[in-house]
Amino acid sequence: MASTKDLVSEALSGSVRALAKLITMVENEMPGALEALQQLYPKTGHAYILGITGPPGSGKSTLTDKITKELRKKGYTVGIVAVDPTSPFSGGALLGDRLRMQDITNDEGVFVRSMATRGTLGGLSKATADTIKILDAFGKDFILIETVGVGQDEVDIVKTADTTLLISVPGLGDEIQALKAGIMEIGDVFVVNKADREGADRLVAELRLMLDLSPSLSPWRPPIIKTIATLGEGVAELTEKILEHRNFLERGEGLLGKRNERAREEIINLIEQEISRYVHKMLKYDMSFDEVIEQVVARKKDPYSYVRRITEPFAKYYQIYKVDKAKS
Amino acid sequence: MASTKDLVSEALSGSVRALAKLITMVENEMPGALEALQQLYPKTGHAYILGITGPPGSGKSTLTDKITKELRKKGYTVGIVAVDPTSPFSGGALLGDRLRMQDITNDEGVFVRSMATRGTLGGLSKATADTIKILDAFGKDFILIETVGVGQDEVDIVKTADTTLLISVPGLGDEIQALKAGIMEIGDVFVVNKADREGADRLVAELRLMLDLSPSLSPWRPPIIKTIATLGEGVAELTEKILEHRNFLERGEGLLGKRNERAREEIINLIEQEISRYVHKMLKYDMSFDEVIEQVVARKKDPYSYVRRITEPFAKYYQIYKVDKAKS
Repeated sequence: MASTKDLVSEALSGSVRALAKLITMVENEMPGALEALQQLYPKTGHAYILGITGPPGSGKSTLTDKITKELRKKGYTVGIVAVDPTSPFSGGALLGDRLRMQDITNDEGVFVRSMATRGTLGGLSKATADTIKILDAFGKDFILIETVGVGQDEVDIVKTADTTLLISVPGLGDEIQALKAGIMEIGDVFVVNKADREGADRLVAELRLMLDLSPSLSPWRPPIIKTIATLGEGVAELTEKILEHRNFLERGEGLLGKRNERAREEIINLIEQEISRYVHKMLKYDMSFDEVIEQVVARKKDPYSYVRRITEPFAKYYQIYKVDKAKS
Repeated sequence: MASTKDLVSEALSGSVRALAKLITMVENEMPGALEALQQLYPKTGHAYILGITGPPGSGKSTLTDKITKELRKKGYTVGIVAVDPTSPFSGGALLGDRLRMQDITNDEGVFVRSMATRGTLGGLSKATADTIKILDAFGKDFILIETVGVGQDEVDIVKTADTTLLISVPGLGDEIQALKAGIMEIGDVFVVNKADREGADRLVAELRLMLDLSPSLSPWRPPIIKTIATLGEGVAELTEKILEHRNFLERGEGLLGKRNERAREEIINLIEQEISRYVHKMLKYDMSFDEVIEQVVARKKDPYSYVRRITEPFAKYYQIYKVDKAKS
């Protein structure tokens, strides 16, 4: 078996096989994953992250593929992370989708990865964030994260993007309602896909109205682009708007702000996961924990007092930490 | 404003208004919420928790209402917690559903609460667990948790039930595939709703096959019940099966085992949330954290080393804790 260091240097010199292996490592939290991320980290920061979200059936995959082709035409390399936590079989399903798009998957400048991990510590958003870092270090210019816009996890994932595309389609029923879901505000570019369907213009008008009504401090006014992804219609214009938004962010402090915010969130998550690991370990060794549980279930003890007792040293530690910081 | 203690004693003597207020308190983590839970805790442990899950459009709400009526006929009081994290508007939507069911909401023996909180510390599963405790202490015999079976959060929520109902319907496409999602194993009773649709018998046969193929150590063989919830057909039989499963669990160690497991999970979650609170506080007061972030974004530092440094004292603390435990 190749060492982590070898894998990292192979990936950095362009081996797709090593790249895929590294992603599998971080996805499954295998030994060496942390080491690999640490070694790759200095090489990251180059890629531009594009989040693509919308309800099931809105044509996300097709649009992702067409945008990829547009970016390839401009000479950019692309990594695609397709996230679908609602179905453990999406790996297969997406693979099916992708097989229809042979021209993309046979393109060396494109790397596609499906993610449907659930239940691991840190879960999907950690796996996605780590995969993005690996693709970034590998040298991809653009990384497209495609995810169904349901559930907090996915909103969190797409929030980490530099530019976020919100896709809606006419005729799904409560299109606007679905978008209202605290999701509206994360959209930088709005797409009305399947624009040859009845109701497309009305949907555009409704989106425009909602955008006009939502207060925003940013001078960026999210454009609304009509596309027919299957035919490629509107995709060139959409890609231009994406690049325009990138320029907008790069001109001001926007991009740095977004990336600072992302780093902050990530560090907090890492700390919490690490501590969570210790808590699990501690409780595993604490023989009295089983007794406590029995007493809690028998209503002889309440869980809250136990939790307070167990976390008290942390409270103290943080007090000390605060004082130390103040002194230094 | 009434004190927490007053609210608790009002709720315990049957005030629905106080009950609703307490739920709002814990849902929004308002001051006094923890105190209320602590006071209520000794009164809990009586209610039987029924989890009801299935894909959108499977008729969960209707089925929940019909089962509620069946339980009411038998003299049981019922609390319903309708969870829908995918839509922040479900509160309204569910309310609409509920309005169609005036006979239930006008029944004093039934209390219905919708939950769609997202983004708070601890989130939906904590809010649901706390609400169940309050309804339990209030004296409800059965508490029905209704949730869309997508996303890890909802699987976690429904896992906390004593008996879990898995609903599927013919003609949704990948019914079986959707159930395979690591969800199959949490079903104690399977329901094929809208059983007048084409494909119902085939769906039953497929479910039966899957259940036969999945290895199980439990002597409980999950029954598969056909229902037409809108007409009330099959609901009486379904309710009998639910009660049968309850008897099964109560006869053996099953129920205690489930409740021990639930208490264990809950205590671990509470500890993690509490520690998470301290971490957030600490980082808020740590002036150098902003600098760290800047250096991480500039790739002068990697986040992993910082996380290790910050969590090191925990590692040490757990070592000490382990040694103390070993001595005592």
